[in-house]
Amino acid sequence: MSEHVVIIGAVALGPKAACRYKRLRPDARVTLIDRDAIVSYGGCGIPYYISGDVSDLRELRTTSFKLVRDEKFFQECKDIEVLTRTEALSIDRQGKTVRLRDLESGAERDLAYDKLVLATGARPRRLGIPGEDLPGVHAVANLRDARDIRDRVSAGKAGKAVVVGSGFIGLEVAEALADMWGLEVAVVEIMDHVLPRNVSPALARMAQAHLAEKGVELRFGEKVLALEGEGRVERVVTDKGVLEADLVVLAAGVVPNGELARAAGLEVSPRGGVLVGETLRTSDPDIFAGGDCVEIHHLVTGKTFNLPLGSMANRQGRVIGSNLAGAKAVFPGAVGSFAVKVFDRFLCGAGLTPEQARQEGFDALAALVIQFDRAHFFPGKELMTLEVTVDRATHKVLGIQGFGPSGDALAGRVGAVAALMQKGCTAEDLSILEYPYSPPFSSAMDIVNTAGTVAENLLAGMNRGISSEEFTRRLRAQDPSCFFLDCREPDNAAPYLAAHPGQWHNIPQGQLRERLDEIPRDRTVVLVCNTGIRSYEGQITLEQAGFRDVLNVHGGMAGLKQSGLDPK
Amino acid sequence: MSEHVVIIGAVALGPKAACRYKRLRPDARVTLIDRDAIVSYGGCGIPYYISGDVSDLRELRTTSFKLVRDEKFFQECKDIEVLTRTEALSIDRQGKTVRLRDLESGAERDLAYDKLVLATGARPRRLGIPGEDLPGVHAVANLRDARDIRDRVSAGKAGKAVVVGSGFIGLEVAEALADMWGLEVAVVEIMDHVLPRNVSPALARMAQAHLAEKGVELRFGEKVLALEGEGRVERVVTDKGVLEADLVVLAAGVVPNGELARAAGLEVSPRGGVLVGETLRTSDPDIFAGGDCVEIHHLVTGKTFNLPLGSMANRQGRVIGSNLAGAKAVFPGAVGSFAVKVFDRFLCGAGLTPEQARQEGFDALAALVIQFDRAHFFPGKELMTLEVTVDRATHKVLGIQGFGPSGDALAGRVGAVAALMQKGCTAEDLSILEYPYSPPFSSAMDIVNTAGTVAENLLAGMNRGISSEEFTRRLRAQDPSCFFLDCREPDNAAPYLAAHPGQWHNIPQGQLRERLDEIPRDRTVVLVCNTGIRSYEGQITLEQAGFRDVLNVHGGMAGLKQSGLDPK
Repeated sequence: MSEHVVIIGAVALGPKAACRYKRLRPDARVTLIDRDAIVSYGGCGIPYYISGDVSDLRELRTTSFKLVRDEKFFQECKDIEVLTRTEALSIDRQGKTVRLRDLESGAERDLAYDKLVLATGARPRRLGIPGEDLPGVHAVANLRDARDIRDRVSAGKAGKAVVVGSGFIGLEVAEALADMWGLEVAVVEIMDHVLPRNVSPALARMAQAHLAEKGVELRFGEKVLALEGEGRVERVVTDKGVLEADLVVLAAGVVPNGELARAAGLEVSPRGGVLVGETLRTSDPDIFAGGDCVEIHHLVTGKTFNLPLGSMANRQGRVIGSNLAGAKAVFPGAVGSFAVKVFDRFLCGAGLTPEQARQEGFDALAALVIQFDRAHFFPGKELMTLEVTVDRATHKVLGIQGFGPSGDALAGRVGAVAALMQKGCTAEDLSILEYPYSPPFSSAMDIVNTAGTVAENLLAGMNRGISSEEFTRRLRAQDPSCFFLDCREPDNAAPYLAAHPGQWHNIPQGQLRERLDEIPRDRTVVLVCNTGIRSYEGQITLEQAGFRDVLNVHGGMAGLKQSGLDPK
Repeated sequence: MSEHVVIIGAVALGPKAACRYKRLRPDARVTLIDRDAIVSYGGCGIPYYISGDVSDLRELRTTSFKLVRDEKFFQECKDIEVLTRTEALSIDRQGKTVRLRDLESGAERDLAYDKLVLATGARPRRLGIPGEDLPGVHAVANLRDARDIRDRVSAGKAGKAVVVGSGFIGLEVAEALADMWGLEVAVVEIMDHVLPRNVSPALARMAQAHLAEKGVELRFGEKVLALEGEGRVERVVTDKGVLEADLVVLAAGVVPNGELARAAGLEVSPRGGVLVGETLRTSDPDIFAGGDCVEIHHLVTGKTFNLPLGSMANRQGRVIGSNLAGAKAVFPGAVGSFAVKVFDRFLCGAGLTPEQARQEGFDALAALVIQFDRAHFFPGKELMTLEVTVDRATHKVLGIQGFGPSGDALAGRVGAVAALMQKGCTAEDLSILEYPYSPPFSSAMDIVNTAGTVAENLLAGMNRGISSEEFTRRLRAQDPSCFFLDCREPDNAAPYLAAHPGQWHNIPQGQLRERLDEIPRDRTVVLVCNTGIRSYEGQITLEQAGFRDVLNVHGGMAGLKQSGLDPK
């Protein structure tokens, strides 16, 4: 006789696990349970519904070919029963039953299971401050939030919005509100840059320069203390001041819904994530868990972490579906790849940032490279930035993040490195990575290969660089120990010579050998060019000539400009 | 004392090896030799110069920041001597000299080397037929060809062009001539589909449908016998007829320039490629070789092959540069990734096609999937096609190829799989590949993951499919043993029911369970839906109900339509 599988949660992982299992065991009985009336939707699409890019909320609930994934769809197309507006109150592991409450009638009953799947998801982190429940204060957790926000802004009832948090959802919502609806948007971030869990300050600065161009006010190192208003939110009070707000969006991260598991005596992390093994079983072998409510293995740190992404939910759901049917499928963990669109720029990444790598105890080096995303002679080429972090001892790639104006081109490079990182890879692997090449797609020496070779050169001690920020700090301080040497052609250098008289110098890289006597040997020579290639060549030339203290500016003028630090 | 390195060939690999070596050994002496007057150019850009996308030939010779890479550039910026219009006649390996001829003066001399690098490239394959040297017959081998072709077409002196060969260069030139200059273009291919060395007939058919839409005449299985004309080419004579032509472009592949190596007693393959080890040394440890003139290790077949790509030249050049300086760098081989733009469509791939895999003796299965390249609710999504070939015994990925309207999105997926294939990977690795996810970039269950899961299901024997071609063959033959069942909604199916009365049937997938008695049990049930997802579900439903012979059409109606096989 076939088993009864009960799945608690029917948004992403739940339906995926159910469908996979049913494909393997068509005669099995599966019951999907959800508190909400609406199931199986693309929650990641909510910011794009708010913006209007997605016109109808139904689109987030349909298949690629327009079938709405409702109870009827699951019953007819998948032979799966869905109980909506039904809450799972508790689990009796001995009796193998789940206590359910019908949220319409209030009636309670026990439902027996042979195997149970916890797909309880995560919820927006609450700030625990006064006013958090005022009308006009929203999270971006479900389709109701989505509709409420869009109804309000599309009716022209909000002029000023404050977004709390500058993670993915915070930035996506900031864009939606500012770009499509013309709101004045301020983003309040307690850390000192955007996407603080995902990118370095250097990459964040590029995104920030773009956000500022688009009119979004960014406020860093600022803590929200209270939300105030008469019957509706009107003000955000922070430790630095008061911001007017017709609309407040809380996007300060999420908390895994691990309470049901914890109450049933299953192992749960201090952060609330359900702990699972690589077959995605909890500490009870008859209970699986996956998606936003679990902690998974981090393939770089070896620790566990919570990675609330629809893509993870789908992949884990398939593994659970297979294992429910008796397979031995494993989910080995993740490197945590991500992608986010911010107006006309895109950021992607995987693994650790340079700062995170050092916090984790790695002796980490970071290579920041800026290069065209296809052949430099091909029309439509754009500058892309990649930052690769490697471990000094093993040359292992610990992380990659990038920024650029083409999301697809960026995701391609980051995706290739993320795939390699899932297997474990080194800087040398990036140098020979076979990104598909012809001029409309990439460069013969593609940026991902350059990132590898720059990392190799850093590891070999050949390339000694400083960041845009450090260069800017020294230049602004008029640091007398530094000799700032622009090694581009005179036309490029001229405006900077004029802007920094006596401080900014120019010798084209091709003339360095014959003009060595113009360069002081008792100061730090700081070389800058367009993207860091000629300044690296210049560094080698000067070191060969006996100069002992030479640095090149990683990313060059392109990096400075993209970061809003053009010293002109 | 530092060594003298002589490098024969100064287009791609030569300059790269020279520059890398000089960065590691700034005091070394390096001499680059080339027959041509112009060195270090992006030959891959020639089709885009012909088309006018690249306006000035100089752009193919400059760095990203507009410096022309001529003899002066190499001398001043790199401290490398370049001898142009100089031919290497022979190598005296005992005496360690190269015999050179100055092509201007005719003077000959010997140049001593400590280490020698062969970067002699490849040349267009000649057909060995009458008329091959007539004016108006061109190869696409160097900047002179490029200028000649563009000068002629831009002057309006050519109305009809014949391109011989439908590999990368053939298709790129066909596009350039037809799209930008409005020529009538015919492509003559001796094999039975375009890109015969790179993609399956199924993917080729998609490209062919697009080429036909763009007005390019495609002639398959046709052999060119002679080129004829009075003082200039006017006709192409084939085994099937005569084509008028004002311009003929020969693009029938390339032949490695291995003669110099062979004459010096170095090991050379029967196809003419110089044989090298993984440090890129020839059979003489003081002589390196790389780029278009060598054979490298194929990471899938384990055999050697010639892979004439600018990207390979750059990567190998770096390895040679490092090893010239005493490092132990290796070039482990390649999976042969490629990318080609064909009008408004793109093809990429790596490794073997299904047909090649079978020829190589693998028991290979191919999964063809069609899916949107980002979230199906996100504006601007497009259908992408991927075909993944796996080995039945080991589940190893042997190849991936794809087709679609977004080159960057396609290259990203293929690049990620190519990177994994360089390490060796299985279908299961693709199923969990962490392509960066958010709706503007990809799907929660991205197409690359779907390709992995479909391959897994094929390997498990769960998914039994047929190709667009096989479906079309059976439908056109009105095969009485087949029951063609469209499992989409009635609106979608209606035009096909009308077009194939009595032959085309329709039961939406969600109604299959309750309408089983409408389906004959003594015929092959051929299920078709939009892209193959519902027909796969339907197959499982029917098999559970005891149907023994059920097939689903891989790629569904989308595949048929893209292949020009819409049976409406």
